[in-house]
Amino acid sequence: MRGPRDVRCEEVAEPEILKPTDAIIRLAASCICGSDLWPYRGLNETNEPKAMGHEYCGIVEDVGSAVKNVRPGQFVVGSFCLSDNTCPHCRFGFQSSCEQREFMTGAQAPRARVPLADGTLVATAELPSDDLVPSLLATSDVLGTGWYAADAARVQPGSTAVVVGDGAVGLMGVLSARQMGASRIIAMSRHKARQEPALEYGATDIVSERGEEGIARIKEMTGNVGADSVLECVGTKESMAQALACARPGSMIGYVGVPHGVEFDGQQLFFSQKGLMGGPAPVRRFLPHLMDLVLERKINPGKVFDLELPLADVAEGYRAMDERRAIKVLLRV
Amino acid sequence: MRGPRDVRCEEVAEPEILKPTDAIIRLAASCICGSDLWPYRGLNETNEPKAMGHEYCGIVEDVGSAVKNVRPGQFVVGSFCLSDNTCPHCRFGFQSSCEQREFMTGAQAPRARVPLADGTLVATAELPSDDLVPSLLATSDVLGTGWYAADAARVQPGSTAVVVGDGAVGLMGVLSARQMGASRIIAMSRHKARQEPALEYGATDIVSERGEEGIARIKEMTGNVGADSVLECVGTKESMAQALACARPGSMIGYVGVPHGVEFDGQQLFFSQKGLMGGPAPVRRFLPHLMDLVLERKINPGKVFDLELPLADVAEGYRAMDERRAIKVLLRV
Repeated sequence: MRGPRDVRCEEVAEPEILKPTDAIIRLAASCICGSDLWPYRGLNETNEPKAMGHEYCGIVEDVGSAVKNVRPGQFVVGSFCLSDNTCPHCRFGFQSSCEQREFMTGAQAPRARVPLADGTLVATAELPSDDLVPSLLATSDVLGTGWYAADAARVQPGSTAVVVGDGAVGLMGVLSARQMGASRIIAMSRHKARQEPALEYGATDIVSERGEEGIARIKEMTGNVGADSVLECVGTKESMAQALACARPGSMIGYVGVPHGVEFDGQQLFFSQKGLMGGPAPVRRFLPHLMDLVLERKINPGKVFDLELPLADVAEGYRAMDERRAIKVLLRV
Repeated sequence: MRGPRDVRCEEVAEPEILKPTDAIIRLAASCICGSDLWPYRGLNETNEPKAMGHEYCGIVEDVGSAVKNVRPGQFVVGSFCLSDNTCPHCRFGFQSSCEQREFMTGAQAPRARVPLADGTLVATAELPSDDLVPSLLATSDVLGTGWYAADAARVQPGSTAVVVGDGAVGLMGVLSARQMGASRIIAMSRHKARQEPALEYGATDIVSERGEEGIARIKEMTGNVGADSVLECVGTKESMAQALACARPGSMIGYVGVPHGVEFDGQQLFFSQKGLMGGPAPVRRFLPHLMDLVLERKINPGKVFDLELPLADVAEGYRAMDERRAIKVLLRV
């Protein structure tokens, strides 16, 4: 990415082992993240060309001398947050706050360097069949992030969950809430094309209204109580206000959309008694379980990719997502 | 209270049953709350004379026609939050957000009216001995609030808890964290007179520094990790900043000091990955357990009262707490 709305597929130097803890992987596929749209839309600064892409899975080609947990030839998935998985934060289950945390980059490419390979990558027992690649790729961020939203919102069996946001993460939040046993999952989605996959992933209800009307609908549907759990999967001021208003007192809001322009008033939060837990998802914590669910074909998060393009057409992929013509774009590498 | 720094003991009309769900109790003792100092100091508006006092225990004298759970002659304790204990919020354990919630008032008096008596009051099996009255009174708010801070901060056996605030609630937070099995309890207290009771209630460490220095001390004591749980028991901008900085990523801050001038930046909260849960304590949830602990003499929260005055001297009680000459004042009624 060279600047807002300027994404190009260019030849760059091959990635190399720079540290003994690195691995080089050949990607099975790559993809575009909703968060890639923040700089694309000029909402985050882009000062110099940046190698984009932080979601990845594929075959290990080479490892540094200190890498012990993975070896060339294995199929691996890693989180968008690179972590050593040994520091106190990792052991606490918050690998996304690892003492050595780095954010993955350069994965919209045929090959990529993965730092902290031992703590970041999870290998499958055998090479997965090709049709599972999109779903395994999804565990790397979009599913792991939706899962974290549900985890942070403490979705329980039998509970009512509201999912704010019908982007790819929101849809994965629906899938996650379903897996965690929520009996009622209300997807707030005003886009017809997103409502259908939401229902497929397990939403029991769709609320297409927003703002005051949307809040009123949720109140009406929950006997004026509010939801037991709210998954905030957007990150705007409006979406967070929606999330807060839909949550019942004593409930948690799991928020995974990077907040832009969001502020919380302490006294308001106090008296409304809504809990908050968010941040970059500690995907590494969930990765083994999510990969198992995929490999056992119990979930199909890969369906979230509704447009496939060759890597050379990456610019069209960004455009399609920016214009909401696509939910999430898979890049063939 | 007639206005800032103007508290008087005056003759008023006797409380009466106004609704069939009311009870009238004769107080065994009353007390002054740290939150009473907000209006005393002019930080909350006082537009008209207000009957102060929301912490209470004593003997039921009369009940309205709809009251079924308590009867005259019983010794009862109630929460400062009045609740029906049957609505969805109450059943969710958040009686402080009850659909019918009212805040108790007028308990700095010999007798008081308790609305929603059935859902609010908890009776003891027999009349407690006099020496237990201060501790039973403490369960009504100060202990219940400290307990909620520890509960909301999810204190676990073996965990490290930091308690911000060495007022009565902070001290009760220390006691609560101890009861919940925290193995390390760091009380942030710069007042010599508060450090001793903190240690008595179970603090393993005292940090007397504040601000950057205090944060550095906590980091140092926790191997640069931060605390597993933080109890914020003050409510100022400074104390909340302290709490946030002392909490480890992925931990919860249970905040029970009514926030004054506190704002949270969404993006900062997101990337630091600190969780928040606060609000008026749902004391009713904890009351039976806390009363049992007192009646079995397993805890002695009543020791938090370090000054006893007759009700007629209530003005001196406020002064003593305002000037920090007393941690918490018990009023003999």
